Amino acid sequence: MSSTERTEKTTEKTPVTVIGLGNMGSALAATLLEHGHPTTVWNRSAAKAEPFADRGAVVAATPGEAVAASSLIIACVLDYDALYEVMDAAGPLAGKALVNLTSGAPEQADEAAARARSLGLGYLDGAIMTTPPGVGNPEMMFLYSGSADVFEAHRPALAALGDPLYLGAEPGHASLYDVALLGLMWSAFTGWLHGTAVVAGDATKAADFTAVAVRWLTHAVAGFLVTYASQVDAGRYPGDDATVDVQIAAIGHLIHAAADRGVDTALPELLKATMERASAAGHGSDSYASVIEVLRKASQNGAAM
Amino acid sequence: MSSTERTEKTTEKTPVTVIGLGNMGSALAATLLEHGHPTTVWNRSAAKAEPFADRGAVVAATPGEAVAASSLIIACVLDYDALYEVMDAAGPLAGKALVNLTSGAPEQADEAAARARSLGLGYLDGAIMTTPPGVGNPEMMFLYSGSADVFEAHRPALAALGDPLYLGAEPGHASLYDVALLGLMWSAFTGWLHGTAVVAGDATKAADFTAVAVRWLTHAVAGFLVTYASQVDAGRYPGDDATVDVQIAAIGHLIHAAADRGVDTALPELLKATMERASAAGHGSDSYASVIEVLRKASQNGAAM
Repeated sequence: MSSTERTEKTTEKTPVTVIGLGNMGSALAATLLEHGHPTTVWNRSAAKAEPFADRGAVVAATPGEAVAASSLIIACVLDYDALYEVMDAAGPLAGKALVNLTSGAPEQADEAAARARSLGLGYLDGAIMTTPPGVGNPEMMFLYSGSADVFEAHRPALAALGDPLYLGAEPGHASLYDVALLGLMWSAFTGWLHGTAVVAGDATKAADFTAVAVRWLTHAVAGFLVTYASQVDAGRYPGDDATVDVQIAAIGHLIHAAADRGVDTALPELLKATMERASAAGHGSDSYASVIEVLRKASQNGAAM
Repeated sequence: MSSTERTEKTTEKTPVTVIGLGNMGSALAATLLEHGHPTTVWNRSAAKAEPFADRGAVVAATPGEAVAASSLIIACVLDYDALYEVMDAAGPLAGKALVNLTSGAPEQADEAAARARSLGLGYLDGAIMTTPPGVGNPEMMFLYSGSADVFEAHRPALAALGDPLYLGAEPGHASLYDVALLGLMWSAFTGWLHGTAVVAGDATKAADFTAVAVRWLTHAVAGFLVTYASQVDAGRYPGDDATVDVQIAAIGHLIHAAADRGVDTALPELLKATMERASAAGHGSDSYASVIEVLRKASQNGAAM
């Protein structure tokens, strides 16, 4: 592309090809169309692609036709095998940019980046931190890692999908953040469901408890995380406000209240055992952030690997 | 108190007695003094009480002198045994109001309420959902349950300490919410520390990951909790956006990434096993909220009690 053409392009919306039209891929394509991007779509089963013709998309007949249509290709397919099938079938890819939003592990992103490099294809990996209905909401985070050039060149198109955050050049980093953030989500979900099971009953609805729980989580707990993150980076965990030993005493009340109500105690028992390992390692008078020390040293503690 | 006296009182700040001057009790007394409440303090060891004389408090020499000074008594002592020692030593308590902010289990609050009733003492139980430095911040929640009369009569004094939320007449309810909310906190803390251990390393600081994690928690995850609470109350868990089976597949990536980095996998393994129990119970295509069904039925599932 000449520099004159590039200048003209900045005043127009970048053409985008979307590969894969599952729930998430369909939400991506629909959002790009809403934002006025000339959009080409391809899906392995053509039935899912057809409705997009009525919405103004070009429905490509083959992967080769699809990738030929745009210099920016966004892929969101079932898995990496499906991605490689498309890449193998697509013909020349040199000089184009692939933004891969297929879910997977960090190593898979690294491998895909290596394959892209061998094809002369720019590679940006991404993780979508919302569900399909959240695509297009500028508050929802899309995490990216890999080629900074691809990220900068296509930031406007990526910004149509959500808030794009660039995490650095290592291709697997977005996937690693993704699984780590999902781990936080599952932990919070399960802790909240456990609390709901303990509290909610004849007189208390889950919605009542949840209104308080959301306020607790978004104000108090989130504030502690910020304080504790600085402690983790410093490697020092002053327990001014609440020590691990104080929390060990308090979690006994939760285990007791759960058992009394026939609610599973496996989660608080595990949390208590983890705190006790931190205390045994010398962190009893430190803050809860010190628990990271025993999580990191799994092999030395004989914990499950 | 005559109605004339009561009317006069509403234009003045209520006198308050604070029993117990540990870190939390001291923060309560200091905040009441800052808000202009005539404040009497008593602590088992007098050394902790003395500094309050300089700040304008009356330092009582005995529990009897302390409770005689005010009709509103706020107690925040080490445990319920310490509370009962003070109540036994205090002399007549009939007609006064006790707001008990001592940490404990729901049954302990129920027992304290019964004792108070036998003495003609109004009883409100409370749980402080912040650390001592958060006392006086109007965003921080103070949960109360027990006597609605005590809550309504003394709402202005309680509002000086934080945002007072009344949870109903059952005295143990504030403590039950407390342990359930702490369980959510410990779960979120541990999930976040685990994610931090997985992600943070040479190139990534805990603070970097935490900035993203806090945004994820306060926007996306908190929003899911509200949606899922309605599902729990309805007893139906439509898995439109993300099913239990999809999450089971995804958590495998987290376990793998953690194991590769020498990070403990006990928490994600437990979360996965819990999801698998939900799937086995027929909730594979339901949302994550359906996991509450297997948490509730601990005994039927052979889980740890």
